[in-house]
Amino acid sequence: MHAYRTHKCAELRASNVGDTVRLSGWIHRKRDHGGVLFVDLRDHYGMTQIVADSDSPALPVLEGLRLESVVTIEGEVKARSEATVNPNLPTGEIELFARSVTILSKAEELPLPVAGEQEYPEETRLKYRFLDLRRETLHANIVKRTQIIRETRRRMEDIGFTEYSTPILTASSPEGARDFLVPSRIHPGKFFALPQAPQQYKQLLMVAGFDRYFQIAPCFRDEDPRADRLPGEFYQLDLEMSFVTQEEVWDTMEPVMAGVFESFADGRKVTPAGEFPRIPYSKAMLDYGTDKPDLRNPLIIHDVTDHFRKSGFGLFERIVEGGGVVRAIPAPNTAEKSRKFFDDMNDWARSEGHAGLGYVTRKGGEFGGPIAKNHGEEGMKALYEAIGLGPDDSCFFAAGKEDQAAKLAGAARTRTGEQLDLVEKDAFRFCWIIDFPFYEWDEEEKKLDFAHNPFSMPQGGLEALETQDPLTIKAFQYDMVCNGYELASGSIRNQHPDLMVKAFELTGLTQADVEERFGGMYRAFQYGAPPHGGMAAGVDRMVMLLCGVQNLREITLFPMNQRAEDLLMGAPSPAMAKQLRELHIRVVEQPPKA
Amino acid sequence: MHAYRTHKCAELRASNVGDTVRLSGWIHRKRDHGGVLFVDLRDHYGMTQIVADSDSPALPVLEGLRLESVVTIEGEVKARSEATVNPNLPTGEIELFARSVTILSKAEELPLPVAGEQEYPEETRLKYRFLDLRRETLHANIVKRTQIIRETRRRMEDIGFTEYSTPILTASSPEGARDFLVPSRIHPGKFFALPQAPQQYKQLLMVAGFDRYFQIAPCFRDEDPRADRLPGEFYQLDLEMSFVTQEEVWDTMEPVMAGVFESFADGRKVTPAGEFPRIPYSKAMLDYGTDKPDLRNPLIIHDVTDHFRKSGFGLFERIVEGGGVVRAIPAPNTAEKSRKFFDDMNDWARSEGHAGLGYVTRKGGEFGGPIAKNHGEEGMKALYEAIGLGPDDSCFFAAGKEDQAAKLAGAARTRTGEQLDLVEKDAFRFCWIIDFPFYEWDEEEKKLDFAHNPFSMPQGGLEALETQDPLTIKAFQYDMVCNGYELASGSIRNQHPDLMVKAFELTGLTQADVEERFGGMYRAFQYGAPPHGGMAAGVDRMVMLLCGVQNLREITLFPMNQRAEDLLMGAPSPAMAKQLRELHIRVVEQPPKA
Repeated sequence: MHAYRTHKCAELRASNVGDTVRLSGWIHRKRDHGGVLFVDLRDHYGMTQIVADSDSPALPVLEGLRLESVVTIEGEVKARSEATVNPNLPTGEIELFARSVTILSKAEELPLPVAGEQEYPEETRLKYRFLDLRRETLHANIVKRTQIIRETRRRMEDIGFTEYSTPILTASSPEGARDFLVPSRIHPGKFFALPQAPQQYKQLLMVAGFDRYFQIAPCFRDEDPRADRLPGEFYQLDLEMSFVTQEEVWDTMEPVMAGVFESFADGRKVTPAGEFPRIPYSKAMLDYGTDKPDLRNPLIIHDVTDHFRKSGFGLFERIVEGGGVVRAIPAPNTAEKSRKFFDDMNDWARSEGHAGLGYVTRKGGEFGGPIAKNHGEEGMKALYEAIGLGPDDSCFFAAGKEDQAAKLAGAARTRTGEQLDLVEKDAFRFCWIIDFPFYEWDEEEKKLDFAHNPFSMPQGGLEALETQDPLTIKAFQYDMVCNGYELASGSIRNQHPDLMVKAFELTGLTQADVEERFGGMYRAFQYGAPPHGGMAAGVDRMVMLLCGVQNLREITLFPMNQRAEDLLMGAPSPAMAKQLRELHIRVVEQPPKA
Repeated sequence: MHAYRTHKCAELRASNVGDTVRLSGWIHRKRDHGGVLFVDLRDHYGMTQIVADSDSPALPVLEGLRLESVVTIEGEVKARSEATVNPNLPTGEIELFARSVTILSKAEELPLPVAGEQEYPEETRLKYRFLDLRRETLHANIVKRTQIIRETRRRMEDIGFTEYSTPILTASSPEGARDFLVPSRIHPGKFFALPQAPQQYKQLLMVAGFDRYFQIAPCFRDEDPRADRLPGEFYQLDLEMSFVTQEEVWDTMEPVMAGVFESFADGRKVTPAGEFPRIPYSKAMLDYGTDKPDLRNPLIIHDVTDHFRKSGFGLFERIVEGGGVVRAIPAPNTAEKSRKFFDDMNDWARSEGHAGLGYVTRKGGEFGGPIAKNHGEEGMKALYEAIGLGPDDSCFFAAGKEDQAAKLAGAARTRTGEQLDLVEKDAFRFCWIIDFPFYEWDEEEKKLDFAHNPFSMPQGGLEALETQDPLTIKAFQYDMVCNGYELASGSIRNQHPDLMVKAFELTGLTQADVEERFGGMYRAFQYGAPPHGGMAAGVDRMVMLLCGVQNLREITLFPMNQRAEDLLMGAPSPAMAKQLRELHIRVVEQPPKA
């Protein structure tokens, strides 16, 4: 007989009745029924009910052990009486009568109970993570995380992608976040950087002729933590393809992402592959007021600027005259809503730092509210007709400079959808946002900067860079969005050295700068570089969506806390003087805080 | 038609003849046959012959392009004449008559040719790694590496292991090598360490109840580079199991390792799963003179100390009297070998720093050489009979202190096997070395130290630690060895806190030290820890063996050079003053070298 177990704790069935078996696991629960002890014995796979009756030598031993102690139980499998069969438990038809028990590990008094799901402070959970991880939901989330990654990997391999691991000790990459640095022992005063993304390496792989790359890639950014961004490391599904157009990247990745989501959707709806809407950035900013639209929300924003060029409502007229815009957010079927509903929305907009959110109410065709009154019934009717609103629909207005009005309209759309309970439930709604601007204006530095990835291909190529207003140039740059979250970002890359130099030139870098900062890639593009493109998807975000949690802590094995500390392992920690000497660095003492 | 290709370069067959197709790839070779240009067009998948005849507008364009330029060719597939069919090429039945060509990327003059396999200096290869990686053998090795990892992963998953990623920014682990440190921005004067191995995390996973863990794990050691150890990072197949004995680990992993090797053996023989010899450390040191025996070598070393307790050969008698040993290394069927063969072996032993390698020759039953002469024929006959040598076998002797004699005997066994061409060819011969000592004596520090993993379980448990001479205690500690290389190392772990404290106590650490250095694990063992064990196998070494290469550079995508520099990306590099300020460190200027 195996030293520890003949079966796992989820394995025994009615067909095993009469067998002598051995199980090992944790004491999950104990129930004393007057001289008979019932123990739920738990392992990774499940639970089995152990019975120790008054004859059993196991009884006093089990009685004396704390929950979460680890034991081996040997005994006989017996059928449960019909009344005590538990149909919710795979092993619910049987119980194991303990003949003997061996203590493998005694548990001290627990700082954190394992059975039950009550909330505990983060500090306790992280310091005793090995207990926290035994808890049902977190344990299941972690397992689901591994399954999602496995399924993703399988799907990528099935369509001809190969996983290549790229270096982790490397040079700084221009992803815009702060690097983690690693002092070099052999080269005094020099540092490696941990990769913020394997961007340059994956492009070099394409130049090296490897066609379809992917990687479940660890990435590192030294940013301040928040709930959806752990300090330190995170994982991306990173991929790159040669000889592709952006449409081919989309067509390739829709089945992967939809497929992975369908596999773990548990009945929730998923946008089918091939049907992800492809929405230009400018249209997304208009229709949804954001480049991360939640398509579960059916509301569409409308530009109604022209309706207010001449209006009795002077405020909007003046805004339009000054070059501003007016956007309308429908609030359908709100005839029965009280005035308070609309005023609360206005208050909310003010609390978010906006000037306010105007509105028009309508009930049985009758308009209400100051905007309608001033603007006039005819004008309102024309506006309602233009944007397709009916006799019992109300409407909110966001007015101001275009970017501010879009932002407010987007937030109001989200809030209106939630308040009116219009947001589709139990669904994952995907879309692509495409045609992002290539450059943006950096107000602080008073210069052009790349809006996204500096290595992306500008639409129109060299000619666009040389002749077009840079702020009107679009990039072959796209995001995949799901339920309002940016799930992935990618582009077709710029593989021409002259185009690369020109693109950087407009942001103020010289050819020499480009050669110094991106020498490897600049060099590579001189020796035969294929057209290539790809994307990177946030694995952690995918897992969060599929597990239905809001905090990365609920899907991460050993997360750091919000102060970027690993409370379990005690990291970071002081280094020994010898180590610092070898690394040619010294810690700079902080002046005491005043 | 697809913008770049209707087919890959390995795809067209006789059945495509007459089709109009589009291919994209690199110009691998060009051959000008008087007005007709033949181009080998290459992509990741293979090669297709392009023909541009004098009528084709593609001819002048292709003529003007350097090798390794990237082009799209459109044209008609034609059958090759019977005389020109190339049976070695999957596309060898056809050629593509170019109607048009589009230049995707022009190549400059190459610093490193892609076609052909001549050697180039490391510096050139690494600086232009994107070209080096296009070369046939290296490209194939990298692809094979990914396939080996994929197959390993598949096999682990198929037997119920789950891949969990453990943190990369963590605390120092006691693996004995130098850590890479990462300064913390948020905690001045504190540092993360990159993991030398996920040892503690995988044990914590077992304590957290996850049963069967594996990971293709990046590991980091700041050691000086050598051919079989790159600076920086390397990969391990890391695994851990709960409720197991060491035999179960071996039984579980033999099919995985043998299976992976068989999948890529290309006809080379592999020790079948279930037949890996399990050799105690002490026996390995005796029989093979090493704990990494190459079992392709059939020679077995024999201890013949007792034969020389009384001997006319005074040197050996004195060595034995002084507590030394004499080991015999057979050299079978050497009757025809000249004296020079034996003297050369002796010279080699001296050149390796040993006092010398004695020998006895034999031809037709007649002994030769000074040892035989002095020891006497009867004694030699008895010795030969005892160790099973015949009338035409010679024998080398290694004498001295046990460890030195074992080491020399082991080296002489290897050399004799090679010189006599006894080593089995085209085979992977696996074994386990088991029952390693738990402690060793640290001569420098004059104290006990752990011989291997401090977290291993000592055989005999607490009682052994309390009562036995520590140097006689064995551990549940094992290595997997293949062809003389340590491929993996593992153990059953010590999961009892009191046993952990006691084990460290004997090496001079107090309970407080243990709690401080391994607080997470010490804490974890208090709250119900299952018996667990596992191992870690060197992925790079597996790939090297299967690719038949001696240098990691031949199986690694972007290796650093021997000075721990990434010549392609330019890492390490100086940091900006602002970065160092944020990290609370300063570079210590080196005094100028005298």
